[in-house]
Amino acid sequence: MYIGVDIGGTNLAAGIVNEAGEIIAQDTTPTLRNRSSGEIISDIARLCRGLVDKAGLSMSDIKKIGAGCPGTIDTETGTAVYVNNLKMEGVPLAGELERLLKKEVHLENDANAAAYGEYCIYGDGAKSFIMITLGTGVGSGIILDGKIYRGFNGAGGEIGHMTLVSGGNRCTCGKDGCWETYASVTALIAQTKAAIEENPGSLMEKLAAERGKISGRTAFDAARAGDEAAKAVVNQYVKYVADGIVSVVNIFQPEKIVLGGGISREGDYLLKPVEEFVKANDYNRYRPHTQLEVARLFNEAGIIGAALAAR
Amino acid sequence: MYIGVDIGGTNLAAGIVNEAGEIIAQDTTPTLRNRSSGEIISDIARLCRGLVDKAGLSMSDIKKIGAGCPGTIDTETGTAVYVNNLKMEGVPLAGELERLLKKEVHLENDANAAAYGEYCIYGDGAKSFIMITLGTGVGSGIILDGKIYRGFNGAGGEIGHMTLVSGGNRCTCGKDGCWETYASVTALIAQTKAAIEENPGSLMEKLAAERGKISGRTAFDAARAGDEAAKAVVNQYVKYVADGIVSVVNIFQPEKIVLGGGISREGDYLLKPVEEFVKANDYNRYRPHTQLEVARLFNEAGIIGAALAAR
Repeated sequence: MYIGVDIGGTNLAAGIVNEAGEIIAQDTTPTLRNRSSGEIISDIARLCRGLVDKAGLSMSDIKKIGAGCPGTIDTETGTAVYVNNLKMEGVPLAGELERLLKKEVHLENDANAAAYGEYCIYGDGAKSFIMITLGTGVGSGIILDGKIYRGFNGAGGEIGHMTLVSGGNRCTCGKDGCWETYASVTALIAQTKAAIEENPGSLMEKLAAERGKISGRTAFDAARAGDEAAKAVVNQYVKYVADGIVSVVNIFQPEKIVLGGGISREGDYLLKPVEEFVKANDYNRYRPHTQLEVARLFNEAGIIGAALAAR
Repeated sequence: MYIGVDIGGTNLAAGIVNEAGEIIAQDTTPTLRNRSSGEIISDIARLCRGLVDKAGLSMSDIKKIGAGCPGTIDTETGTAVYVNNLKMEGVPLAGELERLLKKEVHLENDANAAAYGEYCIYGDGAKSFIMITLGTGVGSGIILDGKIYRGFNGAGGEIGHMTLVSGGNRCTCGKDGCWETYASVTALIAQTKAAIEENPGSLMEKLAAERGKISGRTAFDAARAGDEAAKAVVNQYVKYVADGIVSVVNIFQPEKIVLGGGISREGDYLLKPVEEFVKANDYNRYRPHTQLEVARLFNEAGIIGAALAAR
């Protein structure tokens, strides 16, 4: 039995994961991210202990603990090198948790952990497997020969920060034209907002008013209902997503690419046109093609992946 | 002792390569690429036999033969699946050479072979090593943990065909906006030509007239001599090259990237501004940085790499 922890900007989530990669108990607590890292770490330890009690287990039943954390992570030393939205810099997260819980802790980048979880459960042993998460940003995890690829310095796998439009939109990372600034949910919301302003009275405007906000679903829902302006937003967004995926395919020719994040719940409405674009545009005309799927573990991927990476 | 063969669109080159990766004899013959694949293969075999004689050796001194070939290659079966500029489709190149030379032959994609050669000789055992060749196209080879990365279907590593400008220039591969259409020598020549037309009387025009053609050196030479229009061409070209390299860094965080191809002979005049752009724009602010170098084996990389990949 393992514990997997998913350290998010909003919630700290933990689960007890068995050898088969199933979550047998889970719990969350708010991150309250403006606190010190010490307070957050104490809460993670408390969450883990409570979870063990709740499951009727004792800490001796737990072999190892894995934790996934956003930002730049040094997995070898278990250090959160830099985590922008938790204000952590050089925090020995694994070491602190080990001290509090008396248990070996493995720290991993959260996108890598989620990709590894998805790979272990639904990857079918693919020789090369890449998960792309369309969320607030565009996250990614690369699994080659069953191992997380991190680059020589541990900071690799930031596919969302490849350039999609040279000289294009400024990204939060400081560079211009990152894929993330066109294909994230944040980008889709901005694209939807611009289209609403240009098309007063569109169904998108109506849906946004009803729901009190513009979300990643606004354009998709309106497009499904036949709104032309929304269809244009979705088509353009899908092209941005697909164009980046073709790049990933041409570079890696991975056996499998899995799309995660909220938008992936659109299912075939997103996947089919992406697949068509990839098939029409990828460089490989003569060999078997990358399988494209939507992720299936959703929020549990991070917990399961962190636990299995620790294993 | 090994033989390395570099099958090019213009020349067939072969070399005898010792265990240290040094070429001890080499020879070339024109490809005459409009011939049948059978005739080309016969000439490769003849080239290898002649080379062995010339070096005062016999075929029994040769352990294996490696051949690098452009296009889509199936290394497992030794088949040239599709080679556009040699009109080969499904040619069992390795098998045919084995039949003629009675020696084990390993077939490899030429860009992968060149990268592997550069890696073996000047890679300093980098855990992750990527060679980018700025030539007629933008070629690349990815070496991870000392092994050529090919993707699950053997067609991976086409970094030149990642999108750099979504919806941009149409590439020969059929997709829009490939890095290759902005950063290859072909692209630089087109950019230089456009600048000459827009700036009559520029030094670029004079150099092109003197030399009878516009080449990849025209803008660089004129820029070095102070021509403003040429400097603008070089700056824009360098940005295209660097923007793609930042993407490669963000995705792979490779220990080393090596730039090859004719343009790489510009040395620091190309490398320094590329390095500056990468340092200012890559996603990694807190960990050691990728080393960026120019390739050193030039035309010999393909021969050496093919031989050592066979080993």
